[in-house]
Order: sequence, then structure tokens, then C-alpha cells
Amino acid sequence: MANSKDMKITPRAEDFSAWYQDVVLQGDMAEPAEVVKGCMVIKPNGYAVWELLQGELDRRFKATGHKNAYFPLFIPESFLRREAEHVEGFSPELAVVTVAGGKKLEEPYVVRPTSETIIGHFFSRWIKSYRDLPLLLNQWANVVRWELRTRMFLRTTEFLWQEGHTAHASQEEAHEEAVRILHLYADVAEDVMAMPVIRGVKSRAEKFAGADRSFAIEAMMQNGLALQAGTSHELGQNFGKAFNVQFQSKEGKLEYVWQTSWGVSTRLIGGLIMTHSDDKGLVLPPKLAPTKVVIVPIFRKEGEKATVLEEANKIAAALRAEAVSVEVDAREEHSPGAKFFYWEQLGVPVTIEIGPRDVAAGTAVVKRRDLGTKQPQKRDALVLCVRDVLNQMQSDLLEAGRKRMKENTVVANSIEDVAQVLSDATAEKGGGKFVMAHIKDDPACDARIKEFKASVRCIPLVDEYDGAGKCIVTGETVSHRSVIAKAY
Amino acid sequence: MANSKDMKITPRAEDFSAWYQDVVLQGDMAEPAEVVKGCMVIKPNGYAVWELLQGELDRRFKATGHKNAYFPLFIPESFLRREAEHVEGFSPELAVVTVAGGKKLEEPYVVRPTSETIIGHFFSRWIKSYRDLPLLLNQWANVVRWELRTRMFLRTTEFLWQEGHTAHASQEEAHEEAVRILHLYADVAEDVMAMPVIRGVKSRAEKFAGADRSFAIEAMMQNGLALQAGTSHELGQNFGKAFNVQFQSKEGKLEYVWQTSWGVSTRLIGGLIMTHSDDKGLVLPPKLAPTKVVIVPIFRKEGEKATVLEEANKIAAALRAEAVSVEVDAREEHSPGAKFFYWEQLGVPVTIEIGPRDVAAGTAVVKRRDLGTKQPQKRDALVLCVRDVLNQMQSDLLEAGRKRMKENTVVANSIEDVAQVLSDATAEKGGGKFVMAHIKDDPACDARIKEFKASVRCIPLVDEYDGAGKCIVTGETVSHRSVIAKAY
Repeated sequence: MANSKDMKITPRAEDFSAWYQDVVLQGDMAEPAEVVKGCMVIKPNGYAVWELLQGELDRRFKATGHKNAYFPLFIPESFLRREAEHVEGFSPELAVVTVAGGKKLEEPYVVRPTSETIIGHFFSRWIKSYRDLPLLLNQWANVVRWELRTRMFLRTTEFLWQEGHTAHASQEEAHEEAVRILHLYADVAEDVMAMPVIRGVKSRAEKFAGADRSFAIEAMMQNGLALQAGTSHELGQNFGKAFNVQFQSKEGKLEYVWQTSWGVSTRLIGGLIMTHSDDKGLVLPPKLAPTKVVIVPIFRKEGEKATVLEEANKIAAALRAEAVSVEVDAREEHSPGAKFFYWEQLGVPVTIEIGPRDVAAGTAVVKRRDLGTKQPQKRDALVLCVRDVLNQMQSDLLEAGRKRMKENTVVANSIEDVAQVLSDATAEKGGGKFVMAHIKDDPACDARIKEFKASVRCIPLVDEYDGAGKCIVTGETVSHRSVIAKAY
Repeated sequence: MANSKDMKITPRAEDFSAWYQDVVLQGDMAEPAEVVKGCMVIKPNGYAVWELLQGELDRRFKATGHKNAYFPLFIPESFLRREAEHVEGFSPELAVVTVAGGKKLEEPYVVRPTSETIIGHFFSRWIKSYRDLPLLLNQWANVVRWELRTRMFLRTTEFLWQEGHTAHASQEEAHEEAVRILHLYADVAEDVMAMPVIRGVKSRAEKFAGADRSFAIEAMMQNGLALQAGTSHELGQNFGKAFNVQFQSKEGKLEYVWQTSWGVSTRLIGGLIMTHSDDKGLVLPPKLAPTKVVIVPIFRKEGEKATVLEEANKIAAALRAEAVSVEVDAREEHSPGAKFFYWEQLGVPVTIEIGPRDVAAGTAVVKRRDLGTKQPQKRDALVLCVRDVLNQMQSDLLEAGRKRMKENTVVANSIEDVAQVLSDATAEKGGGKFVMAHIKDDPACDARIKEFKASVRCIPLVDEYDGAGKCIVTGETVSHRSVIAKAY
């Protein structure tokens, strides 16, 4: 068994950070690389979840007309300096190659922290006319950002992601694209990950370095902290001007393209874990569980073994025929109890227990990971039952997340109230809140919130509260409330 | 249209290298990055072929029990020095990160040229007992090797690949694994890429730096040059000892693991192109064609347009229902002739031409890319016909490759004969040969061959010639003939 039998998972209520780390390690999802500062190894269990997520995203990207391509890992250092905000945002985080092939390089290369600049360069070579637009590309890649404080999946110096880069003939089209992708991300978060999110605009202080406007989906972790789970940026003509990406319009005029960029990363897996897992270990929503069902055959005497195993394998075959991924855990060196404990930590949604009495009675016991409920089931209704349990678990997890977000969101009407809620919220032990307040989109207002070690997370696209009101900092009228919270 | 209408493809007979570059560019597969030395951009058409190849490989890796994982891009420089042959082989090619987060690093990181060392480190943490073996991992990743002379797909400083890394309890098991993967690679090369290969062992002089023995598949390009298309290495206990990867055996003894590593890369796409393409442009075997069929509707008068387009869309729907990827090229700014020319350069296996007369007669014209043959077909047999043409084309391409390899392989019985054949072979204009000769597996013998700007490509696993004979260099008896050729 890959995880450690002797290691206990710290309860969430005791230390949420320690709990998270324990769940990642005992769920055999990843481990810190240590010898490479701030990096991790994504182990097979973690990578299999990433592959399922990739599949869901990639299918949606392609269905909306995007094509995958691959651009160089290395970017000439000078490229970053062409967009003033961009270089300011990223230069503290760069890893730089100065020596290659045994020689000092004339111009150092940075390892891509994101690819707007190098892709801008190629867009300028490829785009000549309005007929070349829109250009809708995506790249699956690794990126490097030298972070001081790292945490597996949530923030690592190297991470895996996809980055979409598109060019359009008008600001309006670029805006539509950025919003389309925001909704695509929200759909994957909610429908696939069962992780509810708020769709919003980032404040000017929090937007991407080089963008005119950034959209984001924000999720609430079990401790009430916010997690920015995906971003989609309107880049305006900023990179178009920096890299001279011009096209001849239908009217024959030479214009700069309007661009977008957008990305989600392995960080999503951190969000997935902190949304669903519990003190027993990992909980995976069925749609992202590489193994959806594990069958544990139970027998004491050698004579029972063949009958029970035969039945277990029959059940497995019936599930496989319905495209449900399933394993039979027939290992003899472990007790059934140890096996249940193991698969629980690994987050397998459903376990099926089958012993000699079950075989005789034509039944099996179906156990659901999140609730721990056990249902004895007739053998001939088993496949149907498993499908129902998987579907129900998927929607229950989303509902539980929605309920938690609702219960932990409060309204505040003054900076003092915001401060009070945020100081009561001892996030590491749970109790973090989303505070809905009217606040002007002005870096000075963001700075006031930063004093409480929190931030303006986003200005929701849809107002679910009371419309316009007075900014808690400046007193000026703003159209609707923003989300303020402590965040990862 | 992404490729250039004005650019002509250099004929193979005139300049094979220029032809290759033209086909890559006009097929819109990739382009040199230029601003990043020796790198390329893989464009959507090229990346889509890579995705299909990845899918075929990944499915086979998983079916043979391998799991995907992800290890850090950066490797501490000291790790490479732990295996003497390994560091000697790779150190001239390393890209080194010396600055990160604005500071000089205490120990530089190299950008992985391959991951045996960093994975060896983690194997030593994960493997304790024979129960942890075999450990069968694979990684899809980018790697960097600072090459002086680069060529798109065939040799670029950064490239995409998969690298398998496995650990076993015995030398025998590791040997079986290395050979299993060799055959897996050969199966993908022949069955999917329609590229015939020779399965063999590399000579000691040509083996992987740090391996006990390397296996390879060698393909013959249209100019008679050899291309090493995939390698599988028996690493012995070399990395096990360097990284202290020990396990307790069933008998309770502490032993070093036996490892393998193996990889194929985007180089395969270069091989694919140089195996099948022609003076008109790219030829893709149907199994690796992202778009298998393009339908070109032909109409002159506005009145014909609706009828022809409707029929074209119906044919497309019928093909899609049979899971055949298809596009209707209804663009009005291009003539049918320009469209045929365009899709020809892009290597689409089948084009279907349909005009008003075809609609009236219930027919359509099916054109096959590699032969250029046109068949008028009855509309109701069209889907079946297209499937047949695709299947036939796939197997014909493999057969054509086999025939070419056979015709361009000669037997030589003295070093003078080898020299003669190799000097007659003006590879850039075609005419390269595989020379089958008896030669001892001794670096001194390899060195003699290098004098002719050629190399011992492999010692075939299966002898298809005359068994044992005298080494053309030393006169000693060797078991069977090796393949000698000029190579990429």
C-alpha cells in the first residue's frame, strides 16, 4: 500500500493546513520534491485526476473552436520588458537560464511564467488580415513562478496548466470570448468538480499584470477561505501594441488585434481536495474519480475464497460493461478492515463488500464514501444502484458546497463590520467568511482591505443582493456588493 | 489559409532537406521559433497529430500496467554527476538555471534533458520491499538538450516526449520490460504510423549514457537515411546504486532494483513526414490524420449553391455518424482548385468533390491523397467506400515503406564494400542505403564506420540474413549482421 498505515490525518478542526497536507500525502496524490525548491511530484493518483480534468476542459475548448498548439518553454528576457505592467508583475518570480551548452548566453532566457509575450511575437507573424481572425489557441504546458511560500497543488514553483490565447478583430468579440471562457470554467468547476463558484470581475488592483480586465471564478474552501480557481483576461490591445500584432480590417484599415488569455492549473486539484475531503481522507466526486468503485471480497476459510472471488469478478465485469471503472482488491496480505481504511483515504466514491453470506443471499453491501452510509443491495439491482449512488453523490457534493458557501457568506455595511467579521474568522481552524460589501473598484480601497490580511476577491457578474449602495471606504455609490475574504 | 499560396515545395530529388522544411511549413505543422535558439512552435496541425500519437501510445502504456506521473522540470546539478557515464553524455547539452526569484541560486538547476536522476531519487523514497515492485511509471513532458544543429521535429533544443521509468526485482524482469516496450513502439510505428522499423540492440558505442543496453527501432526515410525512432534501455543497477534504490527481497535480503527507461518524442512526427510525404506536400496515414476527409462543394451559379451545400453537409453527417472526422470547405473566397491544392499540402487522406451534376446523378468523386486517384462513387455506397479507401491507404503506405526499405538494403562483406555503398549514397538527393554487415560490437569498430559519416544503427533482434560471419573490421566471428547507415 502506497500510503502509510501509521500516519494519522490531523482533524480539520485542529489544524486545517496540516489536515490538507495529510490528505494529499495519505491520498497518495503528490509529495513535496524538497530537492527542488517549491516543487512537487504529482503521483499517479493525483495525475489521474488531472487527466480527467484535462479531458473535460479540452473537450469543451475544442467544442468552442479552440485548437491546441505548443510554444517554447524559454522566452527571451527582453520580451517581458515590452509590456510595462507585465514585466513589473512577473519579474520577481522568474527563473532564468543563463548558461546553455556549456556557454554563457548572450541574452538570458526566462522559463515561461505565462506565454503572452512569446505568443504575441508569433501572432504578429501569423495575423495579417481580418480573415485570420479570430485566432483561438490553447496550450497545455508547465510554467514556473518562483514563489516563496508554497503548498502542494495550491502554489508550487512549477505547475501544470492550460493557457488559452486568442486574438480578435474587435473589443466586443474579445470581451465575449473572455466571458465565454469564464462560464466554461464555472461549468467545469460546478458540473465536474462539484465545486460551487462565484463568477466575477477582479478589482483593478487584483487584475492580471498586462490585462485591461480580469474575470475569475472564486470558490470557498471548507475553512471559509477563498480560492481563485480560474481566470480569464481581456488583454485589450496591450500585447498587440507591444508585439505589433496588426491586421487589415474589412474596411482596409490597419488595426491592432484585441486579445484574451485564460488559464486553469493543477491548483484546481487543491481546490477539489479542500472542498470535499474529510477527516478520514480524500473524497473525490465520482466524475473525477479514476477508480469509481472498489470491490472488497471477504472470506475467512480457503473454501469460501473461490466462490466470493468469482462473484466479485462478476460484479466487476458487469460494472465495466457499463463503463464504470472498478477494481477488485483481492490482496491477501491485508485484512478487509485495512483495505476499507486504505480506499477511504484514497477517496474512492463507492466500495462494495461481498462475503460468503452475501453470495448465498444474492446480495452485496454498497458503501458511499462521503456519507459513510451502507446499503445492502440485491445482486440483480446492483449495477443500477451503483450508478444511482454515484450520480447522487456527485449532486449532493455540489449541494453541500452551495449550502456551505451560503451559510458562510455575510453582508457588511461598514469597514468596521468587515474588519469584525474577518477578525472573528480564524481561518486556519475554519470559520472564514465571504463578506459582501459595497466597495469602490479603486486600489486605495483594496489597500484598506489588505490591512485585515484579506482582499477583494471579485465583483460578481450577477448581483444576488441589494443592488447599489455606498462604498464602505469612500462613501461613493457603487452598483453592487463585492466579495471580500481571506484567500489562498 | 494558413500556408502560403506563393511558396513552392522543393522536389525531393533536388534537395531533400529543403523539401522536408517546405513540407513542414506548407503543411502548417510547425515553424522555427528563431528568437529561441533551436526551438520550434508546434502549430495546431502538427499538435493534432501529436495528440493522436499520444492517445495511441498512452492507451498501450496503460493496458500494460503503467501509470502516468509528473516529476519536476528542474534537477539539482549534482544529481547528474552521481552516474559517471550519464553526466558525461549529457553535460555538453545542458541548459542551466542560475538565477531565480531575483537571486543567484546556491546550487544551479539543470532543465531536465531526461529524468533518470530525479526519478531515481524518488524511487529510493518509495521503494522499500519487493511488494513495491514492479513500479511502472510514465511521464509526458518537455525536455531540453542544447543541440548545435537543429531541424524541426527531428532535433530541437526543446522537445515533447514521454519517458517511461520502471523498477524491477530482477534483471530478467527488467529485460522483459525493455523488450516489451520495444515491441510496443514498433507496433505503434508500423500499425499506426505505417512506418516500418527494424527492432534491434544499439551497439555499446551508441547506447544511452548510463544504460547497460539500449534497444531501438530504426526506420528508413525516403532518402535512405536511418532515423532512430524510439529507444528502450536496460539501466541495470546503475541508477539504483547511484541513488541508493534498495528493496528487501522475498528472501529478506537488501538488493538494488533493476531499472528500465524508454522514450519516444515529437521526433516521430519528423519520421512520419519523411516516410510518407511527397513533392505535393504532406501525406498523413489515415490513423494519424486529424481530419480524414474534406468535402469540397463546387458550384458556379448562386442557384446551385444551396443544393450542393445541402448534399455536402448530408455526406459529412453520414461520415460523422461513422466516427470519420470530416470538414466541409464552404469558403467562398477560394476557388475549388485552390482548395484542393491547400488540402493536398495539409495531407488530408481523402477529398470528396461534389458539384451540381453529381447531386443530380446521386454521385460524388472520391480522391485519395497518396495516389492521386479519383473514383466517382454512388452516393449510397459513399460512406463504405470512404472507409475502404482509408483502410487501404493505411495498409498501402506501410507496404510502400516496407518495399522501399527492402529495395534500399544491401549486403556487404568487407569494410571496402561498406565504404563504397555509403559513398555512392548521396543522401541529400536520396539513394541512402542500409548496409547489412557483420561487425563486432566494439567501440573501435563503430569508430571505423564513423569515418564514412555513418554509424552502426542496430544489431537486429531477428536475423533475416545469413547468420554468423566474420567481422569486417577485426575478422572475428559475430552472430549475425548489423545495420549500418547514415542517419539523422
